[in-house]
Amino acid sequence: MYTRDMPSQGLHKELEALQVHRQPLQRRKRARRQVTIAQIAAQSGLSTATVSKVLNGKPDVSPRTRALVQDALLSSGYRRRAVNGAPSLIDIVFNDFDSPWAVEIVRGAAAAAQAEGLTVALTALSEGDERQVWFDHITSRGTRGVILLLSQLTERQRGELVARDLPFVVIDPTAEPGPEVSSVGATNWLGGLAATKHLVDLGHERVAIITGPPELLCSRARFDGYRAALERAGLSVDERLVRPGDFRVKAGYEQARFLFNLSRCPTAIFAGNDLSALGVLRAAREAGLRVPEDLSVVGFDDIPLAEWSTPSLTTVRQPLLEMAAVAVRTLVEAAAGGGSPKRRVELATDLVVRESTTAPR
Amino acid sequence: MYTRDMPSQGLHKELEALQVHRQPLQRRKRARRQVTIAQIAAQSGLSTATVSKVLNGKPDVSPRTRALVQDALLSSGYRRRAVNGAPSLIDIVFNDFDSPWAVEIVRGAAAAAQAEGLTVALTALSEGDERQVWFDHITSRGTRGVILLLSQLTERQRGELVARDLPFVVIDPTAEPGPEVSSVGATNWLGGLAATKHLVDLGHERVAIITGPPELLCSRARFDGYRAALERAGLSVDERLVRPGDFRVKAGYEQARFLFNLSRCPTAIFAGNDLSALGVLRAAREAGLRVPEDLSVVGFDDIPLAEWSTPSLTTVRQPLLEMAAVAVRTLVEAAAGGGSPKRRVELATDLVVRESTTAPR
Repeated sequence: MYTRDMPSQGLHKELEALQVHRQPLQRRKRARRQVTIAQIAAQSGLSTATVSKVLNGKPDVSPRTRALVQDALLSSGYRRRAVNGAPSLIDIVFNDFDSPWAVEIVRGAAAAAQAEGLTVALTALSEGDERQVWFDHITSRGTRGVILLLSQLTERQRGELVARDLPFVVIDPTAEPGPEVSSVGATNWLGGLAATKHLVDLGHERVAIITGPPELLCSRARFDGYRAALERAGLSVDERLVRPGDFRVKAGYEQARFLFNLSRCPTAIFAGNDLSALGVLRAAREAGLRVPEDLSVVGFDDIPLAEWSTPSLTTVRQPLLEMAAVAVRTLVEAAAGGGSPKRRVELATDLVVRESTTAPR
Repeated sequence: MYTRDMPSQGLHKELEALQVHRQPLQRRKRARRQVTIAQIAAQSGLSTATVSKVLNGKPDVSPRTRALVQDALLSSGYRRRAVNGAPSLIDIVFNDFDSPWAVEIVRGAAAAAQAEGLTVALTALSEGDERQVWFDHITSRGTRGVILLLSQLTERQRGELVARDLPFVVIDPTAEPGPEVSSVGATNWLGGLAATKHLVDLGHERVAIITGPPELLCSRARFDGYRAALERAGLSVDERLVRPGDFRVKAGYEQARFLFNLSRCPTAIFAGNDLSALGVLRAAREAGLRVPEDLSVVGFDDIPLAEWSTPSLTTVRQPLLEMAAVAVRTLVEAAAGGGSPKRRVELATDLVVRESTTAPR
């Protein structure tokens, strides 16, 4: 499999890796033992039994006490040692499981986990969730590691994962994940560049984009790729053609309707992801625009249905199954090596040309 | 939620339930203890330690010995007692996770499990799998119960589940599941009837069907509903318009192409499920047929994308999330009540009329 790092981050990552390796293994181990449960107990004015209960995710602790202990654990930098052998589960924690994107990741993770004799367990976090509960569940029954598909990983969540020594990997990090966090993504910038270059090469000059959620790193990278392709072709970015989406069909539909009402309508739309592209196809049909004759459309992801939409979708393929497999292997290797994983991987994207793009009339 | 039993099975099921309840709890418990591990060991000429290893899913047993013990367990009717409290997992075992149908079931199960403080674990069985392995995995770590999404549940698999006392529920049973097996499905016959009646009421007389896999009970029920609707309208079933599909997009596409080449092409197609319907839409587009003006299309399932296809799909809604929730609750209640669940539930289907159907020209 072809893997690469984001060009601008390669050096940074290498320096990081060097620093980690320069520190002798023995010293790292000792550093992790510096803080003991007894110290945490003393610091929070509680018994070691109570601290231990919180660490092991037991239910019979009051919320206030639990919060006290958790704060003490976080501020002290306490890290738990591995418990009783290797559990047979890999956990996937996500905000939302209604996108084909997430489904592909889960499929890939389930297959890769099974190849290692492991099973994948799913936890959905809804917005209003008491976010500590899943840490307790997972901690009390044990896990080989956690794959995070979250729209946001808070500093507190990150701290909890580290304090409980739960190895974790972020898929498609939502923000610059920081040197402590392992992540798997795709070459979003190059994908955005390829999608837009394809349209520009066909002769399109008015190319719109419907972006993903602005807080996601991948949205930003795709947009930057779009801009780079336009600028390389001597075209400037027209702000009216940059529309905010959220990776859902409905936003694609609504933003396309907005674009069709402009006095100078775009001849092509880079839809940010495949679901948005499906919304664009629908809006085009309602507006009496034929795709690709009147409007070219490019998606991103290559979900299974992209091939079967009407017309079939030109899109940027993300290797979602492989991304999930890399995440699983990262966790398995980390568990075998006794440490938390620390690496950042970006897998290559590919432009897949189908029926939804052609030269402008 | 509205639930109902299949009319023809209601009485049978009630008798079943009576029989179970008539047997006093104490006697059932004793009956389960009749066969001991020592007896299994004696019968198979092995030590009790070895039998226990197989029961607990330990790896250090030769395949031959394992098979020996499993045969003895099955033939003796041995049933294991519950182990160490209630595990926090609900297992979902499926053949294939690439259909939006399965995804909806998993989403529903994950949400319902979470409401009970449980996590859903996924196991995929591919065709070539050594099918005993997952029993061992699940048995060794414990489960609250197993939800089966299998295209086929063999007698042996059923026996293994019973012998290890793993409560299980089948979603959309593939064949008459037998009185021992709990299942959750939808009113497929009524759904097939409603879909076809909708087309007949619009004035269609040449209505084709692309069926699901013939071995699935739901395929047969939908087909019977289709036939019943035609016959109630005084139309006979034209065998040339009955095409075998497999619930995948490609088969829908290929069977639609076949139908378009008939000397008397149908004016409407009941596509068996939504994925097949997407294949029909694509074939229609390639053949220059407009949907719904030249061809009406009805799907089945109401997967999330049915609303966003071009044109949007008239379909029969299955309450997939609710079906999964019922399965989870059945397992949780069975675990709480100490016995294996025994009930059969069919949830209601609804016709959802969108853009893909209209009167014939």
